[in-house]
Amino acid sequence: MLSPSPNSSKKAFSRVALVGKFQADGIEEHLKDLAKLVLGLGCEVFIESGTAAHLGLKDYPTKRPQDFSGSIDLVVVLGGDGTMLGIARQLAGSNVPLVGINMGRLGYMTDIPFQSVQDILPKIIAGEYESDTRTLLDAVVIRNGKEINRALALNDVVVNRSAISGMVELALQVNGSFMYNQRSDGLIVSTPTGSTAYALSAGGPILHPHVPGILLVPIAPHALSNRPIVLPQDSVTVIEVVNGLEVIVNFDMQSQTSLQSGDKIEVRQSDKTIALLHPSNHSDYKTLREKLHWNEYPSTF
Amino acid sequence: MLSPSPNSSKKAFSRVALVGKFQADGIEEHLKDLAKLVLGLGCEVFIESGTAAHLGLKDYPTKRPQDFSGSIDLVVVLGGDGTMLGIARQLAGSNVPLVGINMGRLGYMTDIPFQSVQDILPKIIAGEYESDTRTLLDAVVIRNGKEINRALALNDVVVNRSAISGMVELALQVNGSFMYNQRSDGLIVSTPTGSTAYALSAGGPILHPHVPGILLVPIAPHALSNRPIVLPQDSVTVIEVVNGLEVIVNFDMQSQTSLQSGDKIEVRQSDKTIALLHPSNHSDYKTLREKLHWNEYPSTF
Amino acid sequence: MLSPSPNSSKKAFSRVALVGKFQADGIEEHLKDLAKLVLGLGCEVFIESGTAAHLGLKDYPTKRPQDFSGSIDLVVVLGGDGTMLGIARQLAGSNVPLVGINMGRLGYMTDIPFQSVQDILPKIIAGEYESDTRTLLDAVVIRNGKEINRALALNDVVVNRSAISGMVELALQVNGSFMYNQRSDGLIVSTPTGSTAYALSAGGPILHPHVPGILLVPIAPHALSNRPIVLPQDSVTVIEVVNGLEVIVNFDMQSQTSLQSGDKIEVRQSDKTIALLHPSNHSDYKTLREKLHWNEYPSTF
Amino acid sequence: MLSPSPNSSKKAFSRVALVGKFQADGIEEHLKDLAKLVLGLGCEVFIESGTAAHLGLKDYPTKRPQDFSGSIDLVVVLGGDGTMLGIARQLAGSNVPLVGINMGRLGYMTDIPFQSVQDILPKIIAGEYESDTRTLLDAVVIRNGKEINRALALNDVVVNRSAISGMVELALQVNGSFMYNQRSDGLIVSTPTGSTAYALSAGGPILHPHVPGILLVPIAPHALSNRPIVLPQDSVTVIEVVNGLEVIVNFDMQSQTSLQSGDKIEVRQSDKTIALLHPSNHSDYKTLREKLHWNEYPSTF
Repeated sequence: MLSPSPNSSKKAFSRVALVGKFQADGIEEHLKDLAKLVLGLGCEVFIESGTAAHLGLKDYPTKRPQDFSGSIDLVVVLGGDGTMLGIARQLAGSNVPLVGINMGRLGYMTDIPFQSVQDILPKIIAGEYESDTRTLLDAVVIRNGKEINRALALNDVVVNRSAISGMVELALQVNGSFMYNQRSDGLIVSTPTGSTAYALSAGGPILHPHVPGILLVPIAPHALSNRPIVLPQDSVTVIEVVNGLEVIVNFDMQSQTSLQSGDKIEVRQSDKTIALLHPSNHSDYKTLREKLHWNEYPSTF
Repeated sequence: MLSPSPNSSKKAFSRVALVGKFQADGIEEHLKDLAKLVLGLGCEVFIESGTAAHLGLKDYPTKRPQDFSGSIDLVVVLGGDGTMLGIARQLAGSNVPLVGINMGRLGYMTDIPFQSVQDILPKIIAGEYESDTRTLLDAVVIRNGKEINRALALNDVVVNRSAISGMVELALQVNGSFMYNQRSDGLIVSTPTGSTAYALSAGGPILHPHVPGILLVPIAPHALSNRPIVLPQDSVTVIEVVNGLEVIVNFDMQSQTSLQSGDKIEVRQSDKTIALLHPSNHSDYKTLREKLHWNEYPSTF
Repeated sequence: MLSPSPNSSKKAFSRVALVGKFQADGIEEHLKDLAKLVLGLGCEVFIESGTAAHLGLKDYPTKRPQDFSGSIDLVVVLGGDGTMLGIARQLAGSNVPLVGINMGRLGYMTDIPFQSVQDILPKIIAGEYESDTRTLLDAVVIRNGKEINRALALNDVVVNRSAISGMVELALQVNGSFMYNQRSDGLIVSTPTGSTAYALSAGGPILHPHVPGILLVPIAPHALSNRPIVLPQDSVTVIEVVNGLEVIVNFDMQSQTSLQSGDKIEVRQSDKTIALLHPSNHSDYKTLREKLHWNEYPSTF
Repeated sequence: MLSPSPNSSKKAFSRVALVGKFQADGIEEHLKDLAKLVLGLGCEVFIESGTAAHLGLKDYPTKRPQDFSGSIDLVVVLGGDGTMLGIARQLAGSNVPLVGINMGRLGYMTDIPFQSVQDILPKIIAGEYESDTRTLLDAVVIRNGKEINRALALNDVVVNRSAISGMVELALQVNGSFMYNQRSDGLIVSTPTGSTAYALSAGGPILHPHVPGILLVPIAPHALSNRPIVLPQDSVTVIEVVNGLEVIVNFDMQSQTSLQSGDKIEVRQSDKTIALLHPSNHSDYKTLREKLHWNEYPSTF
């Protein structure tokens, strides 16, 4: 077991946990390099227990995500936005910030390329960073007046028809006001963070991560005027399943509940948040530009 | 059992079968009125066997759709576009034309309101009509090089992810040329007839029923530039399931096949067609205008 | 000249100005009825000077919009959203609230039908209302480093190519960060209020009026991934004209400035607001539902 | 003046005209290389008169496009899709085919990269090619019952509002049937060739070049259900200007006519066509894939 370097400089974060996308090729070597780097900065290094177990990593102490709060100061995630999503949902409200490192393809949340990690991570650990607080959704599934499930979502709460039925019919209420009856493939309730994920594919707008709003995007709605809607962040949306076979609600595509006609999903902004840390020169627009192939240069007429 | 009126005038159609949406309220009375009207025009009247069985209609001889060819000259459908779709698929290639009558809400195919049937149907039976030939799709499902299912579709062939998986990944080929790898909720291959159905909800264009083309509409595609595409009518599209859980292909939402990775669906225009008959003054644009709330009048600035 | 009824009850507003869409047929009679009603409620009635001049109304004192602040307590607008827009822009920051009455077609802002005015207006004047504060945009046009125009917009600031050039090319910056170079027909910067106007036609989402955000909608962009974007309300957007002939920026389609290559438009949320008053049972979703033909009732399968 | 190589092999085309985008940097050298290559293949080489005049090229005989018919067998275009569009419109109906070579950015019509020209052009001139016939639109502008202008379009006929007016209102008729009154920024009538140009930016579908259809795309329509429509190729569309200031109709963005209220534009498919030649292994889907950043490879989950 390795111990931190004694001559480390001033640190904003002392106890660092590493999380890796353990299915990815070559992840083990990269994680070891990362651990060594962090250790060299004078930090204590822990490996998230699931990551350690899958990869058989034994050089560092492990810790379970539910134990991070109070005992970990920073989480470094190595993988893609999916890996980030998985761990961030578990840490919501814990006051432990995350840094996302990608191993190739730039992510919206994993915005630091692995090649730059030697340059960027020391600065972040030294306190040179921008903190970016993300909101989550809190969804309650209600059947016959009783809560049957509850979940957080960093990206989205999605009500979906199954492949075997032609559509689902949903009745929407916002803050007690009836909105409409929607016939569609389903409905996405999204955070600003989720606006660049499934909601974007379904025709939704991009919300800057700090817009205090909640996005509703109908999926393939029968009524052509059922357009994406942005609600204020204090809105409570109730979605009732009016009709539909094998309807499912999922949370960040990571957990789900089967629904029956009459079931309601009540979605509001959670009072928990999660903080992502970026390098000081971070630009959300640069990430969008690169990921969405936006034009960087003027045209040559 | 009632027999046709002896003093009937010249007729374009002698043997008429009636099909009804047997689940609809009040359908029985309407069907009886319709039968009486057709009988009064000097035609022989048959009730489609399923309709008769469900409603317990015993005043007229019944006939099964598979027996219409050669023994029925005209099919009159009372219901909505769904009823029309169901019977039309069975009659494709039979040379028996259909007339669609709706009991309230105007349909794209059931364009004659029941209130006008006394005026319009005698004219159609007397030969005053416009014939409107519709194309169908012929889809073959192939697993390990072998055909495992084959179906016709008047509207569309739809490959869909299930509600439990985040996406399906499909590889498309047209006439042997690779088009792209598509990650999405699925893909709609639609006839012009189907362009006003599910394809329209998924963002597709409207195709006039007589455009000799086949429409591909990706459903919530990850790549924002995966847009609807119209192919020439002689195109053969092969859709291969690259990745995805519980993927299903359905045909007009009336029959379906579960798919595995590696399965291919080969879709081409069928050599069978179906003819719909409309009143002489029929306008497709009038139907679209009414159904889609298009503006009829100039604005008053 | 008529004077207010002496036996009037408790009033939230005493001095009421009436504004009318003077081009509309029959507006004069409706305005007179309205004036009589307001007078009967014990209020002083003024007619906006432009309205009075165009209609030749001489029974009431007139007042110019620039003189409303401090001398008028409530403005009642009779017309459509365009009339409302025209007067609201002039009253921004004046602390004088507006009520909108339509003469037929429901408006987003003129949400009280004239037929209900006898019921609703007395209640509003008695203090039974919901106040709805709307934000405006403040736009500065800069040429060679100098401000050449400045305007407020309640709906939108729109940069548009002319009909004679194929496109305009714009460079966007938000809070000093470069966003992208956009080739398109133009760009809409919209308030939540404007999200149901031109921005909606150009493919934008609907923003609830109280979302603290600013909406950017590219018009027919060459890059298919240039999607609508919602920014936080404190964002400063700078739009630079990179290329284009006869480019124009307009403000609520009510005033405009011709632009040259190199010109910049700096758009931020104004510190001025405007308050609309609604009846107590007001629902934004009811208005949207009616105007956009959203389904009110469950389908009958 | 250089003459053709005597020992040339069998040729499908003998007299070749070269057209260049004379504004492009370095075009002169590239044109000279191209001329030498064609000459070396035993062909007679001509330079299009405008190209020669702008670049001061004097080594080869020149010829005006209107004189190509009967005296030129093949036109080789060096530039982008805009250059191709300009010359193709002039050659419609002449039976002279075109080959398009780009100097960098792949075009939909200029699909041969300049670097490959040494390999590909000899094969094409030897007869190894795929011919690709493109349709054009024929538009007549009618005022007070009289034709005031007539033009061909390879891409599109576009009716557009100017930047100073909020919208244009158009009444559409197809084959004598009224379609709707459209309030919008304008209307695009497009060939399949034009479906990847302006029509795509305005939300239209992609039409394979050989779909026998005409595409209508409303630009930012007020009615959200005014969707793109594909009509059969024998459709005659009449667009009447109902309302609007400074409305303009343009043809391929290369010529235009100012319109007044009451003016009509009658658009039909021209009986003239133009042939583009491609290398034998040409794939339209490859071009689309590259230009639209479509996924080529399966995702790595």
